Amino acid sequence: MIYLDNSATTYPKPESVREMLRIAPIIYGANPGRGGYSMSNSTALEIYKVRSKIAEMFSAQSEENVVFTINCTHALNLAIKGLAKKGGHAVTSCLEHNSVMRPLKKLQESGDFSFDVANVFSDDDKTVQSFERKIKSNTDFIVCTYASNVFGDILPIEKIGKLAKKHNIPLIVDAAQAAGVLDIDVKRDNISCLCMPGHKGLYGPVGTGVLVLSEECMPDTIIEGGTGSESKNLLQPSFLPDRFESGTQNALGIIALGKGIDFVRREKINYIREHENELIYYLFNYLLKSDSFILYNGFDSRKYVPILSFNTSGLTGEETASYLAQNGIAVRGGYHCNIFAHDYYRTSSVGTARVSVSAFNRKKDIDYLINSLNKIAKLKKV
Amino acid sequence: MIYLDNSATTYPKPESVREMLRIAPIIYGANPGRGGYSMSNSTALEIYKVRSKIAEMFSAQSEENVVFTINCTHALNLAIKGLAKKGGHAVTSCLEHNSVMRPLKKLQESGDFSFDVANVFSDDDKTVQSFERKIKSNTDFIVCTYASNVFGDILPIEKIGKLAKKHNIPLIVDAAQAAGVLDIDVKRDNISCLCMPGHKGLYGPVGTGVLVLSEECMPDTIIEGGTGSESKNLLQPSFLPDRFESGTQNALGIIALGKGIDFVRREKINYIREHENELIYYLFNYLLKSDSFILYNGFDSRKYVPILSFNTSGLTGEETASYLAQNGIAVRGGYHCNIFAHDYYRTSSVGTARVSVSAFNRKKDIDYLINSLNKIAKLKKV
Repeated sequence: MIYLDNSATTYPKPESVREMLRIAPIIYGANPGRGGYSMSNSTALEIYKVRSKIAEMFSAQSEENVVFTINCTHALNLAIKGLAKKGGHAVTSCLEHNSVMRPLKKLQESGDFSFDVANVFSDDDKTVQSFERKIKSNTDFIVCTYASNVFGDILPIEKIGKLAKKHNIPLIVDAAQAAGVLDIDVKRDNISCLCMPGHKGLYGPVGTGVLVLSEECMPDTIIEGGTGSESKNLLQPSFLPDRFESGTQNALGIIALGKGIDFVRREKINYIREHENELIYYLFNYLLKSDSFILYNGFDSRKYVPILSFNTSGLTGEETASYLAQNGIAVRGGYHCNIFAHDYYRTSSVGTARVSVSAFNRKKDIDYLINSLNKIAKLKKV
Repeated sequence: MIYLDNSATTYPKPESVREMLRIAPIIYGANPGRGGYSMSNSTALEIYKVRSKIAEMFSAQSEENVVFTINCTHALNLAIKGLAKKGGHAVTSCLEHNSVMRPLKKLQESGDFSFDVANVFSDDDKTVQSFERKIKSNTDFIVCTYASNVFGDILPIEKIGKLAKKHNIPLIVDAAQAAGVLDIDVKRDNISCLCMPGHKGLYGPVGTGVLVLSEECMPDTIIEGGTGSESKNLLQPSFLPDRFESGTQNALGIIALGKGIDFVRREKINYIREHENELIYYLFNYLLKSDSFILYNGFDSRKYVPILSFNTSGLTGEETASYLAQNGIAVRGGYHCNIFAHDYYRTSSVGTARVSVSAFNRKKDIDYLINSLNKIAKLKKV
């Protein structure tokens, strides 16, 4: 199988991640922070080291500001629901995934909360102006993606962060497609809640997500329970990370995620992105030259993460993906849990086929894909 | 290390579980239900098989009624918050873990929700009567543990289920210490929401929890996001299990959990429990004969799951656990995230040391523990 669905989850995982998944159940098999014996302590220590790596990578204030979740969606829900107030309001963008839209819609449906949608333009300043126009006196937060999961558009997060700071509003960022791909700095970018998956660009296993909270930001909780701390207190502890980590955490996944982060740091984010961009550019040029395929945006590595959505003329995205699947190629077709982006790019009737690469893809993978696309193009002409 | 902290998480995991953790990232490494290609489909199929095993084990109506979460606490939060109504009320027991108490307390603090605490007696009918007396016209649900995580007390769930049915109130059960240990049947016991960890008595990896919902029970959601289904719908899908499974699930953990369930089914729940009871009974008799140790309940395998909380005379639970840790024995000391149970047993000033065994413990483990306890007893006498 030629795997080109890395935006859904990266595959394969680095050897070191898989090796840790093999040995962690043996050497770090205890419940961390819930016992005073050696394996419980060593498991807790390993988790702390992963917090430390993440804090360093994203410039978090401290290890405690790094909260683990099951996935990016849960991190987004903790941030969105935790910052939403009764009678409140949020500003979001026109490119959001259902992981942002559905929690917002749910708040709206519950009554007493509203949100407005800012437009995204190729001119970053116009984008920021659109965000600013949507801010109201009761705006609780801005929430938006760092990079679109469908078309790869990068939002001007640093500028949106400045805007948020100017208005003293927290900024929640969905970094599902950006973490491990773009250089993210929560301090520089004024990000209050950085939400990301562990299993995409950070090359950890599924079952891991991360919420990095800024110093000032303390959302309310939506999940409470045992934390191994303050057992006698019936109220959820107020301190981080316990406040947001109830019940037994996915120690196994978190410790393996640490190896994924080591991999990204060793390979260096910029090199990985450059490599991925080369592959996407190679594919882009092929698609551009053929009249059998439809592209929706240009190629500009400053404006897009290495994700390419396209269609075969006369076919839906799902049909193209299905044909490629028959040829042993894994790409994703359809709507990618994001109708907003399809509305924006006017692809809501057909969806798209999406190609997304990782550090492990090679030019021969794209050659194999192109070979199959050639066959589709020929079939279409018959 | 002699591991006797299986109530926190079972250790070791069966060989088959560890083997699956090694191979699943290679053969089931795709995001299930989000692509039409072979590895995505085979990953989804494996998850479905685990749903099927769980549905069969607990007599759930169908595979769809089995929802996966990161842990038991999240399952409890989905059930409790999802069934709580404005101006509503809940009935719980005096033995609850913080995974139940903190969500209830949070609802109470938010205003417009209250709860009452029923007493637990050695006479089951008196316990049920206490629950019944707490039911009010606005009671939204009953929530209680199947078995205490501190002293092992089994609650009369079948009778509480009948009570719930009689009053037409959903029953939420925390089966953290019961799943894989006691015979649980959601139909027979009238359980609306069965919440359990995958990593304790079901021998799966950490990072897995399960919520089994009855046919009639449809809690509101507290987490929404992409489900790979109904992408165009900004509202969370209403059908199971998607309604409660947002974002990328822990496919790796879930598939390995399937092997844990196979292990339990192969060994047979009753045999595992009998084996564990023998070990606990052996320890119980030793502790009973020594005047250096304090026991808090009798030994009756019909009334307690194989968990034993005790203290060394003159020491806190934590001190005993700490001494044992120095001797290479893992037991848990302190309050075990449950001050309610300690209040009930009048151990809130000292906590307890808790011994909990699994199918993998042997008599020699208890002999080793007894040997260390003898040393503590001698030290105390000096």
